[in-house]
Amino acid sequence: MTNKSTAPQILDGPAVILIDPQMGENIGAAARAMLNNSLGDLRIVRPRDGWPSETAYAMSSGALDLMPPIKVFDTLADAATDCQFLYATTARPRDMMKPVFTGKEAALDMHKRQRKNQKIGLVFGAERAGLTNEDISLCHAIIQIPLNPGFSSLNLGQAVLLTTYEWYQAQDNTDGYQPAEGDSPLASHGELNELYERLESELEKHHFFRSEGLRPTMMRNIRNMLGRAEFTEQETRTFQGIISALIGNKTPK
Amino acid sequence: MTNKSTAPQILDGPAVILIDPQMGENIGAAARAMLNNSLGDLRIVRPRDGWPSETAYAMSSGALDLMPPIKVFDTLADAATDCQFLYATTARPRDMMKPVFTGKEAALDMHKRQRKNQKIGLVFGAERAGLTNEDISLCHAIIQIPLNPGFSSLNLGQAVLLTTYEWYQAQDNTDGYQPAEGDSPLASHGELNELYERLESELEKHHFFRSEGLRPTMMRNIRNMLGRAEFTEQETRTFQGIISALIGNKTPK
Repeated sequence: MTNKSTAPQILDGPAVILIDPQMGENIGAAARAMLNNSLGDLRIVRPRDGWPSETAYAMSSGALDLMPPIKVFDTLADAATDCQFLYATTARPRDMMKPVFTGKEAALDMHKRQRKNQKIGLVFGAERAGLTNEDISLCHAIIQIPLNPGFSSLNLGQAVLLTTYEWYQAQDNTDGYQPAEGDSPLASHGELNELYERLESELEKHHFFRSEGLRPTMMRNIRNMLGRAEFTEQETRTFQGIISALIGNKTPK
Repeated sequence: MTNKSTAPQILDGPAVILIDPQMGENIGAAARAMLNNSLGDLRIVRPRDGWPSETAYAMSSGALDLMPPIKVFDTLADAATDCQFLYATTARPRDMMKPVFTGKEAALDMHKRQRKNQKIGLVFGAERAGLTNEDISLCHAIIQIPLNPGFSSLNLGQAVLLTTYEWYQAQDNTDGYQPAEGDSPLASHGELNELYERLESELEKHHFFRSEGLRPTMMRNIRNMLGRAEFTEQETRTFQGIISALIGNKTPK
């Protein structure tokens, strides 16, 4: 889907903080997911295999070359010194009092905080172990994405993708539904009417209408049926050609 | 996040149809993403490396063992015989008239159709080539997920994840925001009042209030400040202990 001629956009938004990431692949997948969602501030705490990582670069599909350099830290506290609000992405901890957001609602909360110029951090734990209670205690809120209760485990890249996706969607204003549009303009009422009248007259000649009484209803149904398709000018001509072909004209009208 | 004691739930929902998938890894990632979102009807058309695929099983994190068996077909038309409505997940085709949905709006449309008992298919193309125009022409609508205009390319597993995630979210009724809750009940007004009164009296003894006139305002600010934290009973006792420690009592109250 990428338009190669457009430079990637990086927006002001949350930092993503990965704690103890083990596999370079996952750092790369996280970077790619972030840039898909126009975020560029990636921070890693104690990457197991060090930094930079070739496998991370390979898995990022170019994202790591297009984002500002990743920063590496020794602790979450160091990584988050400039952050006013931290969301821990984890299952709700049983023994800690923290508010819990869904991904969608967390994204709305993030944008509210950004409007107050708060710097936000999204904190992700290690692949298997997740976040320690100590790291969670530094965070202000939990993001727990509702998923299949019996199969909710996401890998690190997918967790970063869904969380940053919600952030991006919450500021995107693309129309949710755009009706069909093509290069050819829609047919005018006149063109359609000409088509319907010709169809009616050919159907009449070919004894389609079982009785004269049924004819108005049947034609109304046909107009409704074809009208829903919203033919373009070109498609109207195609349909005229279909009629010509079916009635045996070698040269379509 | 998976609760191992809960069986994975599979809901009635769209089929996912992968056309010409090349890498088993991507089929596995798609299956995992589907089951994360409680979907189990995966169909593949002309998998390059055949089926079953060991790498697909390995990448699915168990999803392929928990879902109904994947069905394999020769064409999209064969794979979709029972589907009344197909969404093609692709960039908007320039030369075809199709309505275009965002992922979020498409999910709402899917649930509307499900309520009318329509069977829905979500159609995904090959990793690099995407969907052919011929396949797109069999689909009724396009899903184009708004992403970074200069970096919008998703891999197959991620595209399936985001599309099925929106489907799941549209039927999920988790509260978007759940206030902090712990095992210990919230402190009562009386417990908090006792805490505040003791704090005030100790601060008075230690000459914290610069003047008697400022005292009511300062205490009001302190009550507001600590009140926002919504202490539990246990935390109220912890705070009493903090006061005791700071004033030099060896045994907290």
